Amino acid sequence: AALKSELLNDPAFEWTDDSRQWVDRMLDYNVPGGKLNRGLSVIDSYKFLQEGKELTDDEVFLACALGWCIEWLQAYFLVLDDIMDSSHTRRGQPCWYKLPKVGMIAVNDGIILRNHIPRILKKHFRGKPYYVDLLDLFNEVEFQTASGQMIDLITTLVGEKDLSKYSLPIHRRIVQYKTAYYSFYLPVACALLMSGENLDNHVDVKNILIEMGTYFQVQASVIKQLTIMILDDYLDCFGAPEVIGKIGTDIEDFKCSWLVVKALELANEEQTKFLFENYGKEDPACVAKVKELYNALNLRGVFEDYESKSYEKLITFIEAHPSKAVQEVLKSFLGKIYKRQK
Amino acid sequence: AALKSELLNDPAFEWTDDSRQWVDRMLDYNVPGGKLNRGLSVIDSYKFLQEGKELTDDEVFLACALGWCIEWLQAYFLVLDDIMDSSHTRRGQPCWYKLPKVGMIAVNDGIILRNHIPRILKKHFRGKPYYVDLLDLFNEVEFQTASGQMIDLITTLVGEKDLSKYSLPIHRRIVQYKTAYYSFYLPVACALLMSGENLDNHVDVKNILIEMGTYFQVQASVIKQLTIMILDDYLDCFGAPEVIGKIGTDIEDFKCSWLVVKALELANEEQTKFLFENYGKEDPACVAKVKELYNALNLRGVFEDYESKSYEKLITFIEAHPSKAVQEVLKSFLGKIYKRQK
Ligand SMILES: [Mg+2]
Ligand SMILES: [Mg+2]
Ligand SMILES: [Mg+2]
Ligand SMILES: [Mg+2]
Ligand SMILES: [Mg+2]
Ligand SMILES: [Mg+2]
Repeated sequence: AALKSELLNDPAFEWTDDSRQWVDRMLDYNVPGGKLNRGLSVIDSYKFLQEGKELTDDEVFLACALGWCIEWLQAYFLVLDDIMDSSHTRRGQPCWYKLPKVGMIAVNDGIILRNHIPRILKKHFRGKPYYVDLLDLFNEVEFQTASGQMIDLITTLVGEKDLSKYSLPIHRRIVQYKTAYYSFYLPVACALLMSGENLDNHVDVKNILIEMGTYFQVQASVIKQLTIMILDDYLDCFGAPEVIGKIGTDIEDFKCSWLVVKALELANEEQTKFLFENYGKEDPACVAKVKELYNALNLRGVFEDYESKSYEKLITFIEAHPSKAVQEVLKSFLGKIYKRQK
Repeated sequence: AALKSELLNDPAFEWTDDSRQWVDRMLDYNVPGGKLNRGLSVIDSYKFLQEGKELTDDEVFLACALGWCIEWLQAYFLVLDDIMDSSHTRRGQPCWYKLPKVGMIAVNDGIILRNHIPRILKKHFRGKPYYVDLLDLFNEVEFQTASGQMIDLITTLVGEKDLSKYSLPIHRRIVQYKTAYYSFYLPVACALLMSGENLDNHVDVKNILIEMGTYFQVQASVIKQLTIMILDDYLDCFGAPEVIGKIGTDIEDFKCSWLVVKALELANEEQTKFLFENYGKEDPACVAKVKELYNALNLRGVFEDYESKSYEKLITFIEAHPSKAVQEVLKSFLGKIYKRQK
């Protein structure tokens, strides 16, 4: 992008050849790899809000620049999250911090990625009437994401294996703060600001998007978990149990997943005791017992129920919104999620 | 501070007891430990700029709040720097990430500290005419600090032991960007903004402060190095060489210090070859040879020369400044540094 070469020649810093080359390589490795969903949502939403008016080149450029800022924000969080989770791979390649030359320099690279956002905003939006709101928005969403990350980290603090701390409200908070704000609300909020709107008048839009984003994350992880459980059983029959062990270890890792908090909610006294005894243990026998309990509680059915209720609720909210343009934006998000279900 | 309890009850996040307690503990551990020089500089500078006018309680509070923002910024950088440097202690206690319960969660805690700054600014400065300039200022200084940290890290990349990359301009850039902007320029810039000034009209003030901050850092590290060298020799005579080994290992660690770049500049061909062969080696014999060369080149004398020239230059600059109030601010900084010398 043109943004990259601006950043590599930022006059606020006296670049050396080595440092320019480092940042160049770091950006190529970490920024463009994703699905760009978040980035593209800004321009899509902005189009809806303009109700069919042809966008000028300038508007397209600015909406894309904001989309890229969101991608940069995501890259920043992912680079650091991989360090904190001791992850090995990301998007099919080694995590950035895992490269021999990088190591803990990745912490500072995360910081550099984060610092690129206000550089981009200042360069292209400094004169706009909504500039200060844009800064506030990115700051607030970053704070919320970091806070969500924090409860995720301290809730699953290694060694402190106390299942009684897990509950649906805690789980909802982790998911909502850690991903829904920046993935769902932020792109639309950017488009609203570009359209001259005051975000204080759109608290309802925010609430719907946060609800959707939270649901989306739960859906994605539950479907992944259930698929792995089925695949696991299937592979077990053929005596090849180790194939997907690495990717689906929520139970062994004592993760605060929707499945376990729902199980805790539905379990009777005996089943609760059973969960406390078997959750978060490496022993495959314990893992198998937890899965049995999930099946006994019919968590798949419970999830499907949650799924359809959540969809109904969102549709009702959306259709109650006074602006057709905003409805379109929200429905386009809902469409993406609903398509995933089939 | 009152700021802390506001942050612990920030309505932008739904706190849990555990997360509130975590942040409370993290702030107590990392924020107030330093000498508060940077923080107090804001109010001192603001007083000079008001030329003796009595400050209102509100002004005192706001200047202190900005001072605390600088302390928060510093805490954020130090928490992450210790991780990147694999340091063990900081201000006489274990580094935050070294605590058994913390570990890599410290990465996110650094992020949280950083995110507190815009929270404080928004809460107390949102309505001020200089609010947006304050956001821009903190963003720019953070970017510069992270960039300085980056060249420091990539210049001393472990394993890539190539002394030819070290030079006075690189060294100056590391010091200038990594510490001078946030330690020297930022407090005064905050005070200028509070006084209604436009920072674009104060590029000369910025340059003087950056020069001072750079000089200050060089001075601090050269004095430390030279003191250690003398102490080392002294202790050697008494057969107790290991006492200060841990704190003064710039030579072994291949650090880009003022002493080595100056030595490289002054060395003849033979001495240069000698440095290339002995710098950055763990072997005490190599270290001793490097120190001998430093003595042979009379680096102490060269430094004293640099010191007095730098002081003369700064005094001349400062006295050329049109505003008496600004002169006072700059001289108070110079006084702190000069006092340290004696
Ligand atoms: Mg993406
Ligand atoms: Mg992760
Ligand atoms: Mg994680
Ligand atoms: Mg301090
Ligand atoms: Mg350090
Ligand atoms: Mg360091």
